Amino acid sequence: MAGNSFGQLFRVTTFGESHGEAIGVIIDGCPSNLEVDLEFIQSELDKRKPGQSKITTQRKESDTVKILSGIFEGKTTGTPIAMIIPNEDQRSKDYSHIKDAYRPSHADYTYDAKYGHRDHRGGGRSSARETAARVASGAIAKLLLKQAGIEIFAHVSSVGQIDSPNLDLGSLSELLEVRESNIVRCADPATANQMIELIDSIRKEGDTVGGKISCVIRNCPVGLGDPVFDKLHADLGKAMLSINAVHGFDYGSGFSGSEMRGSEHNDLFVPPGSNNENKFQTLTNFSGGIQGGISNGMDITFRVAFKPVATIMQNQDSLDSSGNAASVQGKGRHDPCVVPRAVAIVESMAALVLADHWLRNRVTRL
Amino acid sequence: MAGNSFGQLFRVTTFGESHGEAIGVIIDGCPSNLEVDLEFIQSELDKRKPGQSKITTQRKESDTVKILSGIFEGKTTGTPIAMIIPNEDQRSKDYSHIKDAYRPSHADYTYDAKYGHRDHRGGGRSSARETAARVASGAIAKLLLKQAGIEIFAHVSSVGQIDSPNLDLGSLSELLEVRESNIVRCADPATANQMIELIDSIRKEGDTVGGKISCVIRNCPVGLGDPVFDKLHADLGKAMLSINAVHGFDYGSGFSGSEMRGSEHNDLFVPPGSNNENKFQTLTNFSGGIQGGISNGMDITFRVAFKPVATIMQNQDSLDSSGNAASVQGKGRHDPCVVPRAVAIVESMAALVLADHWLRNRVTRL
Amino acid sequence: MAGNSFGQLFRVTTFGESHGEAIGVIIDGCPSNLEVDLEFIQSELDKRKPGQSKITTQRKESDTVKILSGIFEGKTTGTPIAMIIPNEDQRSKDYSHIKDAYRPSHADYTYDAKYGHRDHRGGGRSSARETAARVASGAIAKLLLKQAGIEIFAHVSSVGQIDSPNLDLGSLSELLEVRESNIVRCADPATANQMIELIDSIRKEGDTVGGKISCVIRNCPVGLGDPVFDKLHADLGKAMLSINAVHGFDYGSGFSGSEMRGSEHNDLFVPPGSNNENKFQTLTNFSGGIQGGISNGMDITFRVAFKPVATIMQNQDSLDSSGNAASVQGKGRHDPCVVPRAVAIVESMAALVLADHWLRNRVTRL
Amino acid sequence: MAGNSFGQLFRVTTFGESHGEAIGVIIDGCPSNLEVDLEFIQSELDKRKPGQSKITTQRKESDTVKILSGIFEGKTTGTPIAMIIPNEDQRSKDYSHIKDAYRPSHADYTYDAKYGHRDHRGGGRSSARETAARVASGAIAKLLLKQAGIEIFAHVSSVGQIDSPNLDLGSLSELLEVRESNIVRCADPATANQMIELIDSIRKEGDTVGGKISCVIRNCPVGLGDPVFDKLHADLGKAMLSINAVHGFDYGSGFSGSEMRGSEHNDLFVPPGSNNENKFQTLTNFSGGIQGGISNGMDITFRVAFKPVATIMQNQDSLDSSGNAASVQGKGRHDPCVVPRAVAIVESMAALVLADHWLRNRVTRL
Repeated sequence: MAGNSFGQLFRVTTFGESHGEAIGVIIDGCPSNLEVDLEFIQSELDKRKPGQSKITTQRKESDTVKILSGIFEGKTTGTPIAMIIPNEDQRSKDYSHIKDAYRPSHADYTYDAKYGHRDHRGGGRSSARETAARVASGAIAKLLLKQAGIEIFAHVSSVGQIDSPNLDLGSLSELLEVRESNIVRCADPATANQMIELIDSIRKEGDTVGGKISCVIRNCPVGLGDPVFDKLHADLGKAMLSINAVHGFDYGSGFSGSEMRGSEHNDLFVPPGSNNENKFQTLTNFSGGIQGGISNGMDITFRVAFKPVATIMQNQDSLDSSGNAASVQGKGRHDPCVVPRAVAIVESMAALVLADHWLRNRVTRL
Repeated sequence: MAGNSFGQLFRVTTFGESHGEAIGVIIDGCPSNLEVDLEFIQSELDKRKPGQSKITTQRKESDTVKILSGIFEGKTTGTPIAMIIPNEDQRSKDYSHIKDAYRPSHADYTYDAKYGHRDHRGGGRSSARETAARVASGAIAKLLLKQAGIEIFAHVSSVGQIDSPNLDLGSLSELLEVRESNIVRCADPATANQMIELIDSIRKEGDTVGGKISCVIRNCPVGLGDPVFDKLHADLGKAMLSINAVHGFDYGSGFSGSEMRGSEHNDLFVPPGSNNENKFQTLTNFSGGIQGGISNGMDITFRVAFKPVATIMQNQDSLDSSGNAASVQGKGRHDPCVVPRAVAIVESMAALVLADHWLRNRVTRL
Repeated sequence: MAGNSFGQLFRVTTFGESHGEAIGVIIDGCPSNLEVDLEFIQSELDKRKPGQSKITTQRKESDTVKILSGIFEGKTTGTPIAMIIPNEDQRSKDYSHIKDAYRPSHADYTYDAKYGHRDHRGGGRSSARETAARVASGAIAKLLLKQAGIEIFAHVSSVGQIDSPNLDLGSLSELLEVRESNIVRCADPATANQMIELIDSIRKEGDTVGGKISCVIRNCPVGLGDPVFDKLHADLGKAMLSINAVHGFDYGSGFSGSEMRGSEHNDLFVPPGSNNENKFQTLTNFSGGIQGGISNGMDITFRVAFKPVATIMQNQDSLDSSGNAASVQGKGRHDPCVVPRAVAIVESMAALVLADHWLRNRVTRL
Repeated sequence: MAGNSFGQLFRVTTFGESHGEAIGVIIDGCPSNLEVDLEFIQSELDKRKPGQSKITTQRKESDTVKILSGIFEGKTTGTPIAMIIPNEDQRSKDYSHIKDAYRPSHADYTYDAKYGHRDHRGGGRSSARETAARVASGAIAKLLLKQAGIEIFAHVSSVGQIDSPNLDLGSLSELLEVRESNIVRCADPATANQMIELIDSIRKEGDTVGGKISCVIRNCPVGLGDPVFDKLHADLGKAMLSINAVHGFDYGSGFSGSEMRGSEHNDLFVPPGSNNENKFQTLTNFSGGIQGGISNGMDITFRVAFKPVATIMQNQDSLDSSGNAASVQGKGRHDPCVVPRAVAIVESMAALVLADHWLRNRVTRL
């Protein structure tokens, strides 16, 4: 209710501030008997953790996850899974200058106005550090989805005005290999190089830049999603929009679909016999794998747009809480572009949505 | 849980199929003592109802709402408000041809696959007729928001590739007057004419076209929205994406913000003294009135992208439920472009989100 | 959230006031493909309806239920089931004397104090008339449970100080036959006669009397209930305590169990071979079929205590809303004892709880 | 949804197993700006902790609570409050004998049957150790309620067949002093001595005994509770029934009220002028401070019945998971009677319910 839980049946609640003792997450509703691979959880966190390359923040966090409950002898027991990630490298003094001053386009002013009392250190609860808890729980959701054969793959499809060409979505594992071979996490190597160059030059200017992440979900069974309000793409959209810095979401044909005609946009069914696996595949996929809010078995595709990081290393005029002029300049350690680290977050949130709807679909029919 | 409820404190649950007895909605959580203007509710429904102009479907529904509970002597009692809208002009036989055949890019196949038993008449539950119930409840949400001084205004900002120029958002009531003076509901009269012409010509071809709706929320108090998951824009996004045919949502700088740099995107605070009302206004509003998921008092702005209507009056190859070839052609009465009628739906869903968060914000502080 | 919904997966929301247009209920989450027997629903409502015998209120309501959505060709579609029951025999003028006066031990004062505006006619929302909507939805829950082989049986086990002897719970269908053969709905015929005599004499005095209902749930599968908060008996308890006039709930050994020792209270397992069906039956059943909040396959047994109806046909001193002395006397048509009609409500609420947990149990394991 | 959360607006989620790393709780929805007194939280935990006297289990746990988030500079920030209590004195080998054998009247069999995989050590999740997390969060709820002037007081009103006389409820703080002066936590000193003697002798026999706790809530504002399902007493009932070993709940006149007549049970309003504080007080309080599910400003009174602890130090015949004969005997450290330690749990759960409804009542009126 207060906004820190997500999902209905596979329900996560995150907690923790950027410079507090620890951040963490409870998963309530993970089915019992799921084997949990701790190394996999850690490897997912490593993709999001700070300090992993020259184009990410230099804050050093090992982001080592500790499981407190819900797993016994390597398998889930059906009871709440609690995980914590201690904060190690807080430099709260980096933030003393913003105890009273509001950073432009940050959440300092709105948190203060809403709650009347905030932990300003490192942005407190509004810091993207919270997303590490999402990745930890998303990793367990992925393990659940793996049992159902569902695969999720995201990559950086644009940085600033540099766009990746459309990918041939042949093999997600091959794309993953390419993506992880470069520090910007774009699955097209040539574009990746341009993106890295751009981010690096912007970083040197003390500036930041936005970008987009594209995601595909493959082998999703037909039937996931609960109309009329909890349509699969509506829940995916909310999940993505809840990630720090996200300003837009579309799926399938997306925004460009609004410029099309019905006769070109409709996805005709593949005539029987033309494929061997699934007679209800479609010839095109402008629907993005979802029709009427329910998955149709085709690839689910969506895009997520991130604004540029608000903390820049340049001096900015601002106000303090009394409305007096104040000047703020980024002193902490920050990302010049958030998308390379956000790939893991996008995948995690997608996994949370899918795990939830996969369970929900179990109670649909008699 | 099964997907037919929306909101936490101002909670609506809709029911009904396109060709059933009636559609309707329960609002649980509307505060007591709110004066309810029935004519206003009806006038909102009239903006969404079919048959209102040559560019909408010719189905004739008066969409007369009947209140069954929750209002006594003209004011809410704090108990559930039940409203029903009888279905009057069903022509179910128009749909007998799709009892077994799946219409391309409709929800026929996915509903059948998910539930195993569906009311195929007029699309059943997947029909946009359900949105009349949203508009009825949205009207009550608007009456609540009016008490708080909050205004909501949406209009058709694009049809196909025709875009409206950016509006001067001076007076929402003036814009409303302009919008309602044309049948496509665009607040720029010159663009409206082009849009109407386009839709009309497409209609004659038996085809359909997509479009976009832009919305602004004004006078929203600072503090609405509940991070980390129920950010105000995340709930707005889910609300919009849950509307039939919506494929995309962005707010503030939106998708184009992902191409910008932090130094240009950051919204600097207005120096004190430069305005009289609110010292924490910002010079620009790329944040779209929301920072860290919480309203900051500036105009909240967002866009919603609609795909073209799937039902076209042209013959299309398809499949029946056994996978055999079938041919479908729109026989019912359908919209060539959904956006003129969807303006009322977008405003209603925005009102439901705002009413919910306005109440939620009451329990934030001691 | 506002208190008019019950259940998580099989979720009902009721609406309506005693003297409004209609009362009704939405079920969101009933699985698709359930055959719905309308006559059965009506027969359940008939057990609760007023005017059925000399010991119930003489208000005449046919309580005819009308289904608006969610059922097509006799089977559920998985979409919300809306049912309404029109109010027919309101005599609102019977209540004009309490528009401003508060009846002792009624909800007049508290509703007024809480909401500031109430429909006083017939008690408005606080009237037990609302429970007809529970019975309508409970009937559908029973149809669902019948598919799972689960049976529910309740009867009047005490009226005032007259207690029914413990029943031999051999065959629930035989007990049902006995129960329905007398107007007080006690499954022990001799006790039934005494109870009827008592109620009738109290009725003639213009007074009322309390009573208790006992309930057994048979053939419940092992595993229903969700610790730690949603224990099966905790949800049953809440369900029962939410019924008008209920002041107490216990299960299994109940209150008397608190006087026992562990060595006598523990339910020893039946040694293997001593029964053929289920090796984990227990010798005794002080646990009432629930251990650790989860059903263990034994009969689930509980009791519900009802206070005497507050409306008596005698003159009572009271206060009006300004605190001035006022005299109130029951003028409407009321029950001298609520338990005979409440048997159907107790069974319905039990069915709602069981249907919900039966669905919930589907998502427990991988 | 999976059962480990309680409350709507003041929402707690507990986690942890008896012999795992730690147990803990997240509070999501505690308003910001509440001063948090850590010593008070610890003192509440001390009332529940094991090893506090000769009549409780000898397991040694300091039950030291550690706050991970949500509190900054001594005050709540409105973000989730995470608290953990490490497990210190696990002796898991005490439980190796029940890895495969099911203890009578415990949750061993039902957890195994439901989840298929369980942490058997010390009862795992079904252990009453989980209630320490409830007490930690209940302490914060109490601090919130203190701001509203609401007081909660519970004491042991019976052990086995020894009943405490009705208390003069004059001053709760004086009663508290008396209660804390004896190890059984009965507010009547003479009865306390008899109770202690009884428990001690039963303990020596290796047996256990049940008991009852009575609770009063004072200075509750008029208006708390949300009919029709979330009546204040229904939520209190569920809260109490969710505590380990509870088999019954009643409020106000309770079970004995079912034997009364309306003319004696009705609570007449106190004529104006006869008291100075509140003109709508009642002469009697059979309603137990709640009418129509809403608090009426009078003392809220209820009783909770606990069965005898299932673990006895005597040999009992049982079965293993394959249905073979097995013998179990309590080897761990257990309570001969649970009620002295459960007083803190009852008060905590009452505080959670009241805090939740106190917040919910803020959104009732326009």
